[in-house]
Amino acid sequence: MQTYIKDLLKHVGEEVTLKGWLYNMRSSGKLMFPQLRDGTGIVQGVVVKSSVSPEMWDALKPLGQESSLVVTGRVREDERAPGGVEIDVTNAEVIQSAHDFPITPKEHGPEFLLDNRHLWLRSKKQHAILKVRHTVVKAVRDFLDSDGFTLCDTPIFTPAACEGTTTLFEVDYFGDEKAYLTQSGQLYNEATAAAFGKVYCFGPTFRAEKSKTRRHLTEFWMVEPEMAYATLDDVMSLAERFLSFIARRVLETRQEELKTLERDTSKLEAIVPPFPRVHYDDAVKMLHEGFEQGAVENKFEWGGDLGAPDESYLSSKYDKPVMVHHYPAAVKAFYMKRDPEHDEYALGVDVLAPEGYGEVIGGGERTTSEEFLEQQIAAHGLPKEAFEWYLDLRRYGSVPHSGFGMGIERCTAWMCGIEHIRETIPFPRMLYRLKP
Amino acid sequence: MQTYIKDLLKHVGEEVTLKGWLYNMRSSGKLMFPQLRDGTGIVQGVVVKSSVSPEMWDALKPLGQESSLVVTGRVREDERAPGGVEIDVTNAEVIQSAHDFPITPKEHGPEFLLDNRHLWLRSKKQHAILKVRHTVVKAVRDFLDSDGFTLCDTPIFTPAACEGTTTLFEVDYFGDEKAYLTQSGQLYNEATAAAFGKVYCFGPTFRAEKSKTRRHLTEFWMVEPEMAYATLDDVMSLAERFLSFIARRVLETRQEELKTLERDTSKLEAIVPPFPRVHYDDAVKMLHEGFEQGAVENKFEWGGDLGAPDESYLSSKYDKPVMVHHYPAAVKAFYMKRDPEHDEYALGVDVLAPEGYGEVIGGGERTTSEEFLEQQIAAHGLPKEAFEWYLDLRRYGSVPHSGFGMGIERCTAWMCGIEHIRETIPFPRMLYRLKP
Repeated sequence: MQTYIKDLLKHVGEEVTLKGWLYNMRSSGKLMFPQLRDGTGIVQGVVVKSSVSPEMWDALKPLGQESSLVVTGRVREDERAPGGVEIDVTNAEVIQSAHDFPITPKEHGPEFLLDNRHLWLRSKKQHAILKVRHTVVKAVRDFLDSDGFTLCDTPIFTPAACEGTTTLFEVDYFGDEKAYLTQSGQLYNEATAAAFGKVYCFGPTFRAEKSKTRRHLTEFWMVEPEMAYATLDDVMSLAERFLSFIARRVLETRQEELKTLERDTSKLEAIVPPFPRVHYDDAVKMLHEGFEQGAVENKFEWGGDLGAPDESYLSSKYDKPVMVHHYPAAVKAFYMKRDPEHDEYALGVDVLAPEGYGEVIGGGERTTSEEFLEQQIAAHGLPKEAFEWYLDLRRYGSVPHSGFGMGIERCTAWMCGIEHIRETIPFPRMLYRLKP
Repeated sequence: MQTYIKDLLKHVGEEVTLKGWLYNMRSSGKLMFPQLRDGTGIVQGVVVKSSVSPEMWDALKPLGQESSLVVTGRVREDERAPGGVEIDVTNAEVIQSAHDFPITPKEHGPEFLLDNRHLWLRSKKQHAILKVRHTVVKAVRDFLDSDGFTLCDTPIFTPAACEGTTTLFEVDYFGDEKAYLTQSGQLYNEATAAAFGKVYCFGPTFRAEKSKTRRHLTEFWMVEPEMAYATLDDVMSLAERFLSFIARRVLETRQEELKTLERDTSKLEAIVPPFPRVHYDDAVKMLHEGFEQGAVENKFEWGGDLGAPDESYLSSKYDKPVMVHHYPAAVKAFYMKRDPEHDEYALGVDVLAPEGYGEVIGGGERTTSEEFLEQQIAAHGLPKEAFEWYLDLRRYGSVPHSGFGMGIERCTAWMCGIEHIRETIPFPRMLYRLKP
């Protein structure tokens, strides 16, 4: 019967059996202090030479890091210990004696660590980050499921590009056709929203971007909720509740991991509704003020999309996410609804995370007009026949509808307070990184 | 303020506003009976000519199927109505008047329906199937999350094939490399299980199979749990609890949809532990008996994998899933552990669903031996360098470990009692089907 390290506090005074790996070993004369990890936590054992057989002592003594072993012992409360307990070891069975584990406490370069990602995952920090990722994913699904959304997974193989064509991965589809890996489930979501009212898709998305920055992955997970009969305002309210729910859930369930990551949790506690809502024009004014004060390097030109330094500057003005809305239509996707009173603006919103984490959510209201959509498709030089099915959504029961997309890895990096997005997914895929 | 149709019973006697689409319209002299759907249900409205303005009457009268409209009215209890209520309409606003919706109550061929999948999703049966799919996915995640599993998404882009190479989709990865779309997260799961103890991956998987059967999709979703320190027996117990949990959850939350699908729910109620466990040799004996009785067309040869007719015959003997274990090693994956007492058997298990739904789960225990694995890699002609990282898992802390994979769409088809797997995913991808 296996007991998990996370549950040890419930077993104080009892004899338990732990199954895991040697995380670290200190010894001092007639005492050994093996640290055991089992995926749920780390606990220190105490082996007294006079209390165990000589064979057992000799078997344990030479074990290298990451040797696998089954340890039996009594749980003793110890306030000084990280998990509040230690194990007085009475027996141990070595499953495999390992030596020369490549990842040691010394500093390794990022390429070495990424080459050994399959082993690096066992280290404390990486473990903590992926536990937070698990919680972010669970929070996302719990929130949407309990808010009346239906999961409608959208296809990975798509016949045409949703946005742009230069950053698509192409797949040979049985020789006679080309398929492209999805960049967004957006258009398909609009079809399922007309069938289910409130829907979401949540799967991997792909960008063949030749960027090698700390914010880019070629393969990342995205959640995209979409609502029929919903406006830009509705989508901003949803984004606000959604992000606040995720942050609260991470705070509630991942205190230990946040401690390992040395995360300033006050930054997460600040993520509560309402979020500031800033019109694009006002954002531009703020950027101009920033430029005059020397806090923004380049003077921002009205009409452009926000760059990373602009986003960082704007978000630095707030301790919670800021929602910039009413972007110039020219920088937003072709299917965005225009502001009925000011045609040059699209009813889109970007939610910028604090602390320089940039855009975590992008979304808005979609056009309901078949005619406008046809004009847009022509103006963007898109092949109309590929969008006939999408036009059908305006021909048959067109309704106001809105939604957004959020990248899971960027959100996880923000929650964790870490710099590199590549650490937020078990096996990152990047421009020069397809292994292991 | 929008009220959802699923909640109407809570609002009897109140005036509510519904936002949706016209599902059907009957009229009779001075009465109209519009059926409204909003994605959460369907309700019938009653419009009395003398109670509404002439303009409203005239606006409603010509509306075609799938016109979008906002209806205000009083909720009246009516036991004969499907949802227990009707709406006495006091006001209605037409959002868009639609005509000639392509999918009518008449019979359409499958190609036509698949071409119009974006609209077909609105029909009652498809809606019900995808609601069940949503519930299957949620049940899977809730079960694993509450059972101590950590979600570790495995990569879609892989550098080498996990099993076989003929059914892989190839992707051009920035010109200088080839990537393959994952067929299974299995090997990566073994790395994350060594870091987290109990893990699962859950994402789309891809098979470039040139099969055009009712059981095949080129893109389908698969969940794969993996446990460190677990044996074949453990994995069979997990599969049993897992499938029973899913069936119970579907029964608890999808009664209405199961009724729409005319599902014999007694078949789902029978899915409770324990499931029969049948050794491959005993399965072969049963197949021989079946052959002698004329119930199996071809005499099964010991040593082969089970074909679809064999699976159907075996599962027809039970009213719950049957777990066939200890397959000949030759028909199972290279990483399977051998039976220590009978080297010709692999410690693998296939779970066959009743009613001819075939293998829903495949899994087993993985080898712990680096040496054995190297032999297998050589014997299967696999490039060793591509598996160096996988061999590392045996070099550093190798432990007994086991897991399985389950295809979500096949499970959903079984839960729904429907024939074609293509109806269990919003946008199916098949040999000749990449659109919409």
